[in-house]
Amino acid sequence: MKIIIESDFGSMSETAKNILLGHMTEAKRVNLSITGGNTPVKVYEKMVTAVKDSPNYDNVHYYNFDEIPVEGQKEGITISDLRRLYLTPAGISEENIHPLTPENYAEQDVSLEAVGGLDAMLIGLGKDGHFCGNMPGTTAFNKLTYKVTVTGEESWFVPEMMEKGMSFVTMGPVSVMRVKHLILIVNGSEKAEMVRRVLTGPVSEDVPASILQLHPNLTVILDKEAAAALDK
Amino acid sequence: MKIIIESDFGSMSETAKNILLGHMTEAKRVNLSITGGNTPVKVYEKMVTAVKDSPNYDNVHYYNFDEIPVEGQKEGITISDLRRLYLTPAGISEENIHPLTPENYAEQDVSLEAVGGLDAMLIGLGKDGHFCGNMPGTTAFNKLTYKVTVTGEESWFVPEMMEKGMSFVTMGPVSVMRVKHLILIVNGSEKAEMVRRVLTGPVSEDVPASILQLHPNLTVILDKEAAAALDK
Amino acid sequence: MKIIIESDFGSMSETAKNILLGHMTEAKRVNLSITGGNTPVKVYEKMVTAVKDSPNYDNVHYYNFDEIPVEGQKEGITISDLRRLYLTPAGISEENIHPLTPENYAEQDVSLEAVGGLDAMLIGLGKDGHFCGNMPGTTAFNKLTYKVTVTGEESWFVPEMMEKGMSFVTMGPVSVMRVKHLILIVNGSEKAEMVRRVLTGPVSEDVPASILQLHPNLTVILDKEAAAALDK
Amino acid sequence: MKIIIESDFGSMSETAKNILLGHMTEAKRVNLSITGGNTPVKVYEKMVTAVKDSPNYDNVHYYNFDEIPVEGQKEGITISDLRRLYLTPAGISEENIHPLTPENYAEQDVSLEAVGGLDAMLIGLGKDGHFCGNMPGTTAFNKLTYKVTVTGEESWFVPEMMEKGMSFVTMGPVSVMRVKHLILIVNGSEKAEMVRRVLTGPVSEDVPASILQLHPNLTVILDKEAAAALDK
Repeated sequence: MKIIIESDFGSMSETAKNILLGHMTEAKRVNLSITGGNTPVKVYEKMVTAVKDSPNYDNVHYYNFDEIPVEGQKEGITISDLRRLYLTPAGISEENIHPLTPENYAEQDVSLEAVGGLDAMLIGLGKDGHFCGNMPGTTAFNKLTYKVTVTGEESWFVPEMMEKGMSFVTMGPVSVMRVKHLILIVNGSEKAEMVRRVLTGPVSEDVPASILQLHPNLTVILDKEAAAALDK
Repeated sequence: MKIIIESDFGSMSETAKNILLGHMTEAKRVNLSITGGNTPVKVYEKMVTAVKDSPNYDNVHYYNFDEIPVEGQKEGITISDLRRLYLTPAGISEENIHPLTPENYAEQDVSLEAVGGLDAMLIGLGKDGHFCGNMPGTTAFNKLTYKVTVTGEESWFVPEMMEKGMSFVTMGPVSVMRVKHLILIVNGSEKAEMVRRVLTGPVSEDVPASILQLHPNLTVILDKEAAAALDK
Repeated sequence: MKIIIESDFGSMSETAKNILLGHMTEAKRVNLSITGGNTPVKVYEKMVTAVKDSPNYDNVHYYNFDEIPVEGQKEGITISDLRRLYLTPAGISEENIHPLTPENYAEQDVSLEAVGGLDAMLIGLGKDGHFCGNMPGTTAFNKLTYKVTVTGEESWFVPEMMEKGMSFVTMGPVSVMRVKHLILIVNGSEKAEMVRRVLTGPVSEDVPASILQLHPNLTVILDKEAAAALDK
Repeated sequence: MKIIIESDFGSMSETAKNILLGHMTEAKRVNLSITGGNTPVKVYEKMVTAVKDSPNYDNVHYYNFDEIPVEGQKEGITISDLRRLYLTPAGISEENIHPLTPENYAEQDVSLEAVGGLDAMLIGLGKDGHFCGNMPGTTAFNKLTYKVTVTGEESWFVPEMMEKGMSFVTMGPVSVMRVKHLILIVNGSEKAEMVRRVLTGPVSEDVPASILQLHPNLTVILDKEAAAALDK
């Protein structure tokens, strides 16, 4: 594991962008899996500047690693997020976008193997220790890509925002361990204690992201606040 | 994970030997970590035939992944075993042998990184689910190479064979996950149930080898008997 | 470059088989490109024994690297050769066989990139220094997969066997340099002098295989006779 | 080969810096070989900003790929250049700096293999088609690291600047082909024609850099002017 501590959100985003561009400039098909949410917003802003209208990055293919379908909508929350934040403003061609969906999730691991695997994955960390859709209480470490149906008993169930019986799909811990380079970005003091647990505490399904300690090529980029609980 | 089921001990050993020779013939420095014990006996017999007195394999360096020191003996049980079974009959030059010892274990992970990491590791499986020296009750998944001091309370403590206060060193789960190709060999019906648990059951520190399910490049070679409890 | 000198044709074939099986046992999709001709006959005999009727090698995909179409025949000389020597007796499933043809050659490099590239390629050496279909007089080192139309002026033109205007396709030097592991097998005293030129002489398009000296992971397996002109 | 065309020298430098930082952030020992000269000046300015006083990049080791000794000076021109432009202002620790010298050049390829090889190399292009110290008239494609003694007959001999009998050392074409990722940066219209020849012309020792067309992972970063002679 390599931990990079940056002074602030901007520097964290700059470094994450550089790592991704580093992969994207290799002379081969490059398969990237990238995260939605708030943490990467500035990463994508910076990437759009580099990639927009450029023929230089036609070799890069994009995958999402989890998806929450929305009734009555053609596409789910994650890929919609990625389109809005990055894929559309960067002008990524549709044939380079490979959405994970509730329909195709069971073939996701085989599909990825058939294109040579994922070169890099950008992920965030939940305050509750989740990564991708691997949530406390519904994660088993020996899972490939899988589907979760929400029962309402989960610690993270929010009645106003979720419905019992809804479901989502996510790449599992085994799938994520196959990625050649894992880039975890975390910012903000409210996640500092979870960063400490995830990076230095016991490896346990109760703290799903703790499994990432076992990845052979994990780069963690933190701002100072997220790093505050780590030993110096 | 790739599971290869062979008809018997001989075929299992033949296939394991082929995989190792496959690595050893690459045009680069090749770093191998290999196991002692009874399971690989025939693998080494076959390898000796191929390697003995051959200048073809000077590029291969050997590491042991655990060690039990013996009082009054210059070298421990594992490396002595490896010398007897393989290194000496194969005529491996001393400068290609890199013993792990109680004295140097704390530098093992850094030393391995400095030579480009381990290309392959051959391991066996204990009936109690251990791999390398990662034993039930003394294994934490987030360990690099570490030292265990025996208390006598361990489930695997055998008073006739062990002494309280004795200690051994082993590469930990994090170290093993860094190996580029992991080859697990298991034979015999008495390990069949543990093979099933390790390869298909929950990932738990109580069954240390269950973590191997998460390795991105694990080849398991079983004889029919060891594979008997797996679903067909 | 790593040179392995074996005592005879049988040992050369055994070692080549081991290297290929080493790749085939990795826990991923494995893309192999293999050669027709006489040199690999015993390699394939041995591989058939290991692979036949085995579900263990479903992850391996096969490619030919050159092809000579035959009028009135559905398939060309190389793939027909490979079917007879290996693919059919080994019971390889049709969906794991990817013939290169005069129709699809222009897409070959892109197709290979889309599946993660070739993991290994087994090649032979011509007495005239050719490799794959890269012949003296028609080879440019900067070629991807390409088509050659025979003029009758070539040094290797044999009027009884060839017709002016016939054509063949072959992966070019650039394509071959992209293969992760290159395995060159050569036997027999009549190729000894060419082995010396190819492995130690100047790099020149007149001796197409001389370019292989620049491959970062080339394993050469020779019998004693083919190695006779090399310095000891 | 992947060609990236940037609008100007600044953007070219920015992209090159990103690629290098991408490598440097991997969770492993990273071995970089970097170039002196004028082309990378801005790359290093930008890298100094990211790396200076940062504990984040202790895993990166630096190598130079050629060296011209200077009489009466402890260190040669290239490493002195690199110290001035990057290593000193970035505060790189002496133990991470591995100078190539006329004294150690014969062991350079073995030394690099022993640390796992070079992960990336940043190189420039000479107007005469040279790369590293591989000059027209003194380059053989089948060379590892070697020494050149200047005769005064070379096309690039400049009497005011060089002396007959002086010598320099350089990694050769075979050494450079072993680098996992090659990054070639070129700017300015005066090199545009040579860029065209090197990237699209015949592969010939008269234009040493033409061999780079055969590298399996070459990224070329050009400003618009250097790209002007390439077909659109």
